Amino acid sequence: MEWNYLTTVEEMEADAKKLREMGLLSGAETWEDRKQNQTPQCKFGEEGICCRICSMGPCRITPKAPRGICGADAHAIAGRNYLRFIAGGTAAHSDHGREICHTMNATERDGHYQIHDEQKLLKLAKEWGVETEGKDIYDIAHETAHVGLMEYGKPFGTLNFLKRAPEERQKLWDDLGIAPRAVDREIATAMHMTHMGNSAEAKALVTQGLRTGLADGWGGSMIGTEFSDILFGTPMPKDTEANLGVLEKDMVNIVIHGHDPAMSEMIVLASEDKDLLEYARTKGAKGINIAGLCCTANEMAMRHGVRMAGNFLQQENALLTGVVEMIAVDVQCIFPALGPLSECFHTKFITTSAIAQIPGSIYVKFEAKKAREQGRELVRMAIDNFENRDPNKIFIPKNKQTATVGYSCEAIKKQLDTVTNSHLDELDTYKPLIDCIKSGVIRGAVAIVGCNNPKVRPDYSHIEIMKKLIANDIVIVASGCSAQAAAKAGLLSKEAKEICGAGLKRVCELADIPPILHMGSCVDISRMMLLATGIAKDWGIDIPQVPVVGCAPEWMSEKAVSIANYVVATGIDTYLGIEPQVKGSSQMMELITEGTRKMVGAGYIINKDPEDLVNAMIAGIEAKRDALGI
Amino acid sequence: MEWNYLTTVEEMEADAKKLREMGLLSGAETWEDRKQNQTPQCKFGEEGICCRICSMGPCRITPKAPRGICGADAHAIAGRNYLRFIAGGTAAHSDHGREICHTMNATERDGHYQIHDEQKLLKLAKEWGVETEGKDIYDIAHETAHVGLMEYGKPFGTLNFLKRAPEERQKLWDDLGIAPRAVDREIATAMHMTHMGNSAEAKALVTQGLRTGLADGWGGSMIGTEFSDILFGTPMPKDTEANLGVLEKDMVNIVIHGHDPAMSEMIVLASEDKDLLEYARTKGAKGINIAGLCCTANEMAMRHGVRMAGNFLQQENALLTGVVEMIAVDVQCIFPALGPLSECFHTKFITTSAIAQIPGSIYVKFEAKKAREQGRELVRMAIDNFENRDPNKIFIPKNKQTATVGYSCEAIKKQLDTVTNSHLDELDTYKPLIDCIKSGVIRGAVAIVGCNNPKVRPDYSHIEIMKKLIANDIVIVASGCSAQAAAKAGLLSKEAKEICGAGLKRVCELADIPPILHMGSCVDISRMMLLATGIAKDWGIDIPQVPVVGCAPEWMSEKAVSIANYVVATGIDTYLGIEPQVKGSSQMMELITEGTRKMVGAGYIINKDPEDLVNAMIAGIEAKRDALGI
Repeated sequence: MEWNYLTTVEEMEADAKKLREMGLLSGAETWEDRKQNQTPQCKFGEEGICCRICSMGPCRITPKAPRGICGADAHAIAGRNYLRFIAGGTAAHSDHGREICHTMNATERDGHYQIHDEQKLLKLAKEWGVETEGKDIYDIAHETAHVGLMEYGKPFGTLNFLKRAPEERQKLWDDLGIAPRAVDREIATAMHMTHMGNSAEAKALVTQGLRTGLADGWGGSMIGTEFSDILFGTPMPKDTEANLGVLEKDMVNIVIHGHDPAMSEMIVLASEDKDLLEYARTKGAKGINIAGLCCTANEMAMRHGVRMAGNFLQQENALLTGVVEMIAVDVQCIFPALGPLSECFHTKFITTSAIAQIPGSIYVKFEAKKAREQGRELVRMAIDNFENRDPNKIFIPKNKQTATVGYSCEAIKKQLDTVTNSHLDELDTYKPLIDCIKSGVIRGAVAIVGCNNPKVRPDYSHIEIMKKLIANDIVIVASGCSAQAAAKAGLLSKEAKEICGAGLKRVCELADIPPILHMGSCVDISRMMLLATGIAKDWGIDIPQVPVVGCAPEWMSEKAVSIANYVVATGIDTYLGIEPQVKGSSQMMELITEGTRKMVGAGYIINKDPEDLVNAMIAGIEAKRDALGI
Repeated sequence: MEWNYLTTVEEMEADAKKLREMGLLSGAETWEDRKQNQTPQCKFGEEGICCRICSMGPCRITPKAPRGICGADAHAIAGRNYLRFIAGGTAAHSDHGREICHTMNATERDGHYQIHDEQKLLKLAKEWGVETEGKDIYDIAHETAHVGLMEYGKPFGTLNFLKRAPEERQKLWDDLGIAPRAVDREIATAMHMTHMGNSAEAKALVTQGLRTGLADGWGGSMIGTEFSDILFGTPMPKDTEANLGVLEKDMVNIVIHGHDPAMSEMIVLASEDKDLLEYARTKGAKGINIAGLCCTANEMAMRHGVRMAGNFLQQENALLTGVVEMIAVDVQCIFPALGPLSECFHTKFITTSAIAQIPGSIYVKFEAKKAREQGRELVRMAIDNFENRDPNKIFIPKNKQTATVGYSCEAIKKQLDTVTNSHLDELDTYKPLIDCIKSGVIRGAVAIVGCNNPKVRPDYSHIEIMKKLIANDIVIVASGCSAQAAAKAGLLSKEAKEICGAGLKRVCELADIPPILHMGSCVDISRMMLLATGIAKDWGIDIPQVPVVGCAPEWMSEKAVSIANYVVATGIDTYLGIEPQVKGSSQMMELITEGTRKMVGAGYIINKDPEDLVNAMIAGIEAKRDALGI
């Protein structure tokens, strides 16, 4: 049977075009307009050879001017910019994790936030040496939160979670001096090293980049993921829908956007409140519809089945439908454009975090001790706004797809247990998956992650790469905006098995999974590190040997480069569809592609053409298979 | 008597010109050459309206393109760049302080590093609640170091040293939400807030800038200063000399450069070693001459009388003399140009910190547990290099000046005690100084700090501003490269009283001080905060009322902007001779000049003309006097 229910990029683009036309009537501009105005972009910046680190500058490297005023050359400048990029990403992810720690520290049995996965908390408490015997679960939660918070600032030692990595990896990190100390310290070190008059040696900067990245993936992000699971529940497979078609004409639409689930959990909770539902009906609405954008969408979809309106470059489109009563955001990837854009419509734009204060928004600082009331207030405000819609400005694209989301490591193992002979085989391992890879039924796995970037056709690379990989019997784990591109296309549907190779299709059927497993938000790429570790351990080989690679075809944020660094440092080759901005330095280009390979066994493979990129990935996986003799 | 022994900027420039000519023969280039190559500089960067925070960019603001692709406008972009600039500076200063904490934690009675100011340690231990009774001083040192290290990462509360500020200031900081939490956390927060898709509100970014700056001045820098005093001794007035004339033709010249005194202390110690001195003589040298550059010079001059070869833009000139056997550096403000430059001469270029790894150097990682041997090894290496000098490449400018340096707060109070009637007056206060200001004998005080910057004529602004201020009976405290500009000119000599106004001259004579008090390195600007606090407390008024202002006429580094932020947040107007790179945003310009004034009672006054700047300062001081009715 030929299955042809995928939503194509062309269809999505047609929707976007119509919305843009509608927007023009309201005086709205979108990223497409601004992209046009910003073209051409500065080559010095794109190549990483513009230095603005002190006020003697800016200095730019040219053949005539091979060094900045201080004597920094292209390698020093590109290297410093690159390390600062990583520091920004690690700060973002990790600070998100820290906020979750503080939220866990504020949990109470009858409080606004409670513990939802006690087993995971107890496991983590034991792992970290927190006494659990005879203790109240909330005391354990607070003590564990304290240990978590100290991971950001402890004066001695390295991060606790590093011990989860394969032993050879831990030793390698120690030997290379890249085992991260406290999370914030690595950020401060990165900023200090790149300050005027400090490191000018590209290799030193790249090395600290790996360490700073590890502080994210095996530090801040992993804390964010683990604590979110404990607080809000460990994701298990859930059905949902994706794309702008999830917005409802007759309901109060509240779009939640950002990354930290703490605020959105309260809005989702409030949206199920009987009084508020009744209140919405008194205002002429048939109900309250919550839809997610960006990683908030991932967090809420995988824990509550909340539907996903779209990913990064679709955030403006959601508002352009004219039916969004409120967009409430927390942190990261929020377009400042939402300020003026929301003013073209009746939409209330709510910011909730001190970290992300944006002109044109109503700032309601979310606080753990009054979060439930705040959630209710926001939902009420959205309901009150329902009547302010302008019927002339409404257009909701029809496209939406079903998706199964929420494959935490725990969920994946549970699913694998279903294909295990429970009388003969060990449960709760990745061995069934490893057997499939060994036998060649599945050739390998790719983690596809990252953003959209107007430098390439939005979602196109994600979707084309995914289609080709699954057609070649390569299973995919996805997160962040990449996972949503897949969801919008229909690739997170179990039906997508129909466009898989025969081997992968059979596995999808047996294990009852889609060929692309949604693992969550961008902090949840830490789950992928644990997955790779688990596979390596259960297989008895080192991570770089496993036929698993990472891919960020359309990345744009500093977080993505931080991620790429911890993925590489973990020993996983990372395929990038957008060039890191270091091309002006031959040393930096060598270091990020080959140099790290000599250090940690992995590096970047960069190709702007998605077809070439996916072919390189398949070749990379096959090469790893060859090396293993499978 | 007309005193005319000042070295003029013209004389210094003539020396620099000769050295540059000498250098050309050796194929050496200097910052003047590179500055020329880098002209014109990018206006987008200079005005702060180029955004490279995500890889959708770079985006630049123009009338045609008023927003970046994400929708960030000029205010968001300039604000984010500005906050990251501060974060870089706070990271640099504070990480320096952290290293000193670790050094203190490594002290032992018979170790490489020992405690030199037990009284100051005991005082600090008591302030921080470290039990001292009946305890070994080294146990107290280690426990106090632990408390210091926790200031970088404690999960709750605000910085300990904030309690040293006047109570109304502490309350203001709390009310404004700018009392810094752990030092590294403020850096991470600044990086997170400025990540793509977070804060776009200029005021929020400027507010976090104040908090991040405070984490430097009342956190990392103050820790650096206090712990350095405990470790190496609290500075007391010492005579020394300054300018390139301190290099010796017949001696082994070792130039120490950077900021953290830990490495340089060991080199100075080794240079006094009898065996090594004897070894130097066997190599034909008459001795071992240590000379300092940048803040290392300040640190070593005020504790050991080590002579100062020069400030920031003189670092290359030191090597161009052809008589430097070794330049050993630690962190910050090290030109990467020293790599290729040292290769034009026999000079060994030694880097010693993981933070500052520079191509063309020999990397000898300094470690507290073997520092003495490492110091000796470096001195021996320099001695061995003495014979490699090329006589044809030698030119040592004659100019040097005498200077009295080392006015810590403790030293200033001690000096003030000498003019006090010990039978009638309280000792150990700033009251004699306050009385002088109240009576108008001294009109006020200016803290002149900061770097050199090729955007203006090096040292000229420092020196001209200082001359005019002291002629107008305004006493100066100086640090960093500014203090060295003064030293080179002769303004740190007690004889400089001759060019003071009658009132200040009389005070200099009575108190036996130069009119410009050298307070140390750039982390030591924390001393100035305590000085201002002490004056305000002893006077019984709030800091912004005191006729004291700050000035950085030639600043260039991120540290300078971090400093400017904590100075302003402390309530002291700050006069800048170089524009912060935010001119492309009207909101940012308003916020840094007037906006902060509404918040913390102080702001920037920016003027590129030193004559205008000093006149504005005098007017500012007189206005404060008027407001006090004195």
